[in-house]
Amino acid sequence: MSGNTIGKLFTVTTFGESHGVALGAIVDGCPPGVMLSEADLQRDLDRRRPGSSRHTTQRKEPDQVRILSGVFEGMTTGASIGLLIENTDQRSKDYSKIKDQFRPAHADYTYHHKYGHRDYRGGGRSSARETAMRVAAGAIAKQFLASRGVQIRGYMSQLGPIKIDFKTWNSVDDNAFFSPDPAKVPELEAYMDQLRRDQDSVGAEVTVVAEGVPVGLGEPVFDRLDAELAHSLMSINAVKGIEIGDGFASIDQRGSTHRDEMTPEGFLSNHAGGVLGGISSGQPIVARLALKPTSSITTPGRSIDIHGEPVEVVTKGRHDPCVGIRATPIAEAMMAITLMDHWLRQRGQNAHVKVDTPRLGQC
Amino acid sequence: MSGNTIGKLFTVTTFGESHGVALGAIVDGCPPGVMLSEADLQRDLDRRRPGSSRHTTQRKEPDQVRILSGVFEGMTTGASIGLLIENTDQRSKDYSKIKDQFRPAHADYTYHHKYGHRDYRGGGRSSARETAMRVAAGAIAKQFLASRGVQIRGYMSQLGPIKIDFKTWNSVDDNAFFSPDPAKVPELEAYMDQLRRDQDSVGAEVTVVAEGVPVGLGEPVFDRLDAELAHSLMSINAVKGIEIGDGFASIDQRGSTHRDEMTPEGFLSNHAGGVLGGISSGQPIVARLALKPTSSITTPGRSIDIHGEPVEVVTKGRHDPCVGIRATPIAEAMMAITLMDHWLRQRGQNAHVKVDTPRLGQC
Amino acid sequence: MSGNTIGKLFTVTTFGESHGVALGAIVDGCPPGVMLSEADLQRDLDRRRPGSSRHTTQRKEPDQVRILSGVFEGMTTGASIGLLIENTDQRSKDYSKIKDQFRPAHADYTYHHKYGHRDYRGGGRSSARETAMRVAAGAIAKQFLASRGVQIRGYMSQLGPIKIDFKTWNSVDDNAFFSPDPAKVPELEAYMDQLRRDQDSVGAEVTVVAEGVPVGLGEPVFDRLDAELAHSLMSINAVKGIEIGDGFASIDQRGSTHRDEMTPEGFLSNHAGGVLGGISSGQPIVARLALKPTSSITTPGRSIDIHGEPVEVVTKGRHDPCVGIRATPIAEAMMAITLMDHWLRQRGQNAHVKVDTPRLGQC
Amino acid sequence: MSGNTIGKLFTVTTFGESHGVALGAIVDGCPPGVMLSEADLQRDLDRRRPGSSRHTTQRKEPDQVRILSGVFEGMTTGASIGLLIENTDQRSKDYSKIKDQFRPAHADYTYHHKYGHRDYRGGGRSSARETAMRVAAGAIAKQFLASRGVQIRGYMSQLGPIKIDFKTWNSVDDNAFFSPDPAKVPELEAYMDQLRRDQDSVGAEVTVVAEGVPVGLGEPVFDRLDAELAHSLMSINAVKGIEIGDGFASIDQRGSTHRDEMTPEGFLSNHAGGVLGGISSGQPIVARLALKPTSSITTPGRSIDIHGEPVEVVTKGRHDPCVGIRATPIAEAMMAITLMDHWLRQRGQNAHVKVDTPRLGQC
Repeated sequence: MSGNTIGKLFTVTTFGESHGVALGAIVDGCPPGVMLSEADLQRDLDRRRPGSSRHTTQRKEPDQVRILSGVFEGMTTGASIGLLIENTDQRSKDYSKIKDQFRPAHADYTYHHKYGHRDYRGGGRSSARETAMRVAAGAIAKQFLASRGVQIRGYMSQLGPIKIDFKTWNSVDDNAFFSPDPAKVPELEAYMDQLRRDQDSVGAEVTVVAEGVPVGLGEPVFDRLDAELAHSLMSINAVKGIEIGDGFASIDQRGSTHRDEMTPEGFLSNHAGGVLGGISSGQPIVARLALKPTSSITTPGRSIDIHGEPVEVVTKGRHDPCVGIRATPIAEAMMAITLMDHWLRQRGQNAHVKVDTPRLGQC
Repeated sequence: MSGNTIGKLFTVTTFGESHGVALGAIVDGCPPGVMLSEADLQRDLDRRRPGSSRHTTQRKEPDQVRILSGVFEGMTTGASIGLLIENTDQRSKDYSKIKDQFRPAHADYTYHHKYGHRDYRGGGRSSARETAMRVAAGAIAKQFLASRGVQIRGYMSQLGPIKIDFKTWNSVDDNAFFSPDPAKVPELEAYMDQLRRDQDSVGAEVTVVAEGVPVGLGEPVFDRLDAELAHSLMSINAVKGIEIGDGFASIDQRGSTHRDEMTPEGFLSNHAGGVLGGISSGQPIVARLALKPTSSITTPGRSIDIHGEPVEVVTKGRHDPCVGIRATPIAEAMMAITLMDHWLRQRGQNAHVKVDTPRLGQC
Repeated sequence: MSGNTIGKLFTVTTFGESHGVALGAIVDGCPPGVMLSEADLQRDLDRRRPGSSRHTTQRKEPDQVRILSGVFEGMTTGASIGLLIENTDQRSKDYSKIKDQFRPAHADYTYHHKYGHRDYRGGGRSSARETAMRVAAGAIAKQFLASRGVQIRGYMSQLGPIKIDFKTWNSVDDNAFFSPDPAKVPELEAYMDQLRRDQDSVGAEVTVVAEGVPVGLGEPVFDRLDAELAHSLMSINAVKGIEIGDGFASIDQRGSTHRDEMTPEGFLSNHAGGVLGGISSGQPIVARLALKPTSSITTPGRSIDIHGEPVEVVTKGRHDPCVGIRATPIAEAMMAITLMDHWLRQRGQNAHVKVDTPRLGQC
Repeated sequence: MSGNTIGKLFTVTTFGESHGVALGAIVDGCPPGVMLSEADLQRDLDRRRPGSSRHTTQRKEPDQVRILSGVFEGMTTGASIGLLIENTDQRSKDYSKIKDQFRPAHADYTYHHKYGHRDYRGGGRSSARETAMRVAAGAIAKQFLASRGVQIRGYMSQLGPIKIDFKTWNSVDDNAFFSPDPAKVPELEAYMDQLRRDQDSVGAEVTVVAEGVPVGLGEPVFDRLDAELAHSLMSINAVKGIEIGDGFASIDQRGSTHRDEMTPEGFLSNHAGGVLGGISSGQPIVARLALKPTSSITTPGRSIDIHGEPVEVVTKGRHDPCVGIRATPIAEAMMAITLMDHWLRQRGQNAHVKVDTPRLGQC
């Protein structure tokens, strides 16, 4: 396909441009019998919604999602699920001015050369607005997984230079930054306020954790669970790096340190991040995403126009000074979509397996 | 599929266990008219071959590859290409002893629970021996891409605590470590010799670079070029992290720093690593892989057996104290496979696009 | 996936139930630069629309399609295309009565056992109403193919016992039956009027022809063009048989008769129906579909209910006495979707091929 | 992919040319724990083997298959299964003479234009020799399905003008024609002897039946079980038509006749051929294949060469005067592959469904 579908048994296909009529998705492969309502999707959409604080884009979008099919009397039927969000706040005038210019480090240049003809309004298909549908579809996967004891949660673990240690899940949804440490919030707010005064943007790191995942999800060799998680998480706008477990910290570790020893009571550590040989081990699955600073800033930058002439670009419009802030629900959604896909694939191919070996406890 | 195939238009499907009869692959989707011989594949296989230095496993495998189909009179025909490598050096006795034990941090535990019945000899399907076929298949992609001006090369950028700065491509194939800095080699050798005395293993970082990639490879949203590269590179055994361009260093960068400005003469920097909006920009594509220390060491470790009883595991047999050393040709192969797949997909969907905008020079 | 997507490079994914809120589709992989408007899709939707004559279901649906994305300033951008048709005429009361009964020869029984929970209103997802989206998506493929000189047209070649010889394309859209022989229309009308009085239904045969297809579309072995056409055409509701070229008539032909001889002027016959070795030959591609009589008739039939108890079923509601009548635009759409997919795949894998051998003229 | 793979969860990928070194396949997705030996595959390969009677090609190929991976201690492990058959009887000299000519109605012409460069020896990849690997892979699916109570059997139902009514399964493997009516064999032999004297070929019809298939296999809309069966069966060389159940006979049936009524004791008929709404009904699945007469005959035919010049072609070499004769095990194999794929897909997506409605008995 040409890139707008992810998954093999549980598939999500999306459409929609930043300033188009609507955003939509078709979620296929959801088993029948899953309780599902629009409210279940709206919850995560509201967590991602722009304009919820002064630290994110001021674009006002209710992002009201409608379920158009696949759910009957409050329960999935196994048929494909159609989702739709109408775009309401489209200020094209903000963008028409730079229609022939390429914003530096933006998809303008590559879309222009790949497609020739593009919807330049607000980045069109390349806009992060597309991620709303990932969140809506991911909420379906979360609902399915939750009913089987799997909980997926994320938080911001670094904002620019500020590292945020994990303190408590309770705090995460109580602040605009998805910070697991309430004490850090004032520092984060001060940093963001200064960033806006500097007319600049900054990167961030998001950590996502899946708990309750049974041993056995993932396929050997190419479709390893960690490889497919890397795929789905790296497909989020602005992501430049992915770690599973200790990630890059593994480079200077010794094997005697990194290996997670096992006792009858359970694993003694989780350097692997819940994946061994590409297959889930029953430990929490831990992934980290590095998000780059957005290129849409009002500080002038050198670029060219479609004629190859030099131009100075200033990106007006309403942008997130740190796209990482709203990335947490998106990362949760992508991890959920990938885990659910592998849940179904595992069921399809290995359901007859019975082993007496006890599953180990988590670390 | 169940995980042994990668790619959409250019597909590679592999089989084979560490101590089985043979390893094999079917490469499908290679266009006709590509000059190809077994020697073209053997070159990279020899670079990956074990036992080539005292710093890698002493298992002796000639890894002689045969092309069984798809090539006629020295040229590809467009038919599927069958590849075969017979296993010659299989010492099963080394392994039978731990057949009922799970080596800590190894795939034994997850394979056992997922499949119930497994080939425990030398890790069976989960052994890194499987990567020989990735290298053979990748050599076909490299051959195709080279004929179109794309060059893919890798090097070791860190071994355990030792960072290796890039000095010259010329040095890379002249030492056992794929080090781009010949001056570092003695230090690397000394470190590895001590590591063996410590009966331990260590991680590494490999960097892969593709030059000459045209603008336009990659699909929006889910099949972004960087997302699919993350998938194919993370699918290599022992890889725990992936970076594209500045990767995790982007987190505390400002947008005004990270964005790669453009002038009529070309890009002024390459923080993006050659991908913008998921599509190649024409700049060099730069990816880094973090490889964990192998869990197969002779230092005893705590674990359990298939009955859930505690055991102390010592992994005998012939293992790489640093799997990262031989990972360079494997990483090159996976990048080549993914780039070739997108080359064909791009041709399939966008060949009619003509834009007058000049392509920019590389940075 | 779970069955709601077709195609590899040009993919169509659909959703929607007979009595749901809306029908929708996402068309992915359409190259940029194709002129496209809602009117281009509406044309074929109107040809399929119910209630257009007394010989089809009296359900009144305007089937007004909206393009929600992927088209900008009248031209495709290469982004996924979202399509939507709101359902307006939903008479659920017609169906609630038989919600616990299985109509004989209908999908009720199999859907119930496969999914447990189903939207029984009007057949839900199994209703032929779903085919509206095939026609809308197929119109995009037709538009692309037409711009490259490929014309896809169909006609009814048999209605129940009445065989209809091909006379002229001009007549096909001038009558309710898509009959290529205007002289047959009165006989067809009389037959249908009697059929309604008999409270029964009947089968039909539809023939689809693609002209202007270049030599080279189709992949060897499993993805032969004829095999994928068989797949896409057999996926249309009520289709029970597929023929390519002479089809079943080939059984008692001799090789000396069947083989299409070639001269420098062109092929001397087209028994093969335009496909040789699974690849298009440049001759017209000819396929025939056998459509069964619908099971939804008002003549009482024996069946069971969900408790396994015997019931007598009378299918009220508004049904086509011959679903084959409206199948012509649907069959054209499916052939167009499959041909376009292979057009892109051929371009992706073989665009570099240059042979001097002249293409032969059609027969 | 480029056509050499079939299936979604249970996938078969093949390679090999008629006169190449070997034929091979990778079977991926087979669950672990299936008892499997080379003898299980050899059984069907021997049924297909050429030279087994004077009525088939005299090419002598032992077709000895080797299992190279995926089976350990007599049982599948869930890893990909590598299969290999070495070619032993390759008489290239038979073919080199017509290397620049296109045999009428053969794939020579289309392969030449699609690929430019081709292995012309014995038809290369387009030779029916490729079907040996379908039979080997299909035997794995048959083994899996048999362990779950599904039996797949086929027979020849027509040879040229001679219709063969089904009498008994016992007779099918006792004669060279797979005739279910022993009394017809002398007539078939006489016909074939005359056909050889006429230096001509003829078509045939093969019927395949799957019994014991549970209700619920198949996906709605595009991946209906009957659509995917049409795909896999039409992908067999020389097949020009496919019927499910009554097939083309449905055209002039009335709905009151065609619909299979149900009683608590079971279905009263099986016009549908075991598929309702694209999903298996629990009744026997019945498919018929129309095979064309092979174009490889010694009667001279008009054609052109690669320069476009007229030539008279006489196809020497060793060919089947009726390819339909050996098609029965191939058709069984393809039906098995498709059913197994859907068995796994059904398990993956719907395993939680529990309905109390009793399954109906077969008709």
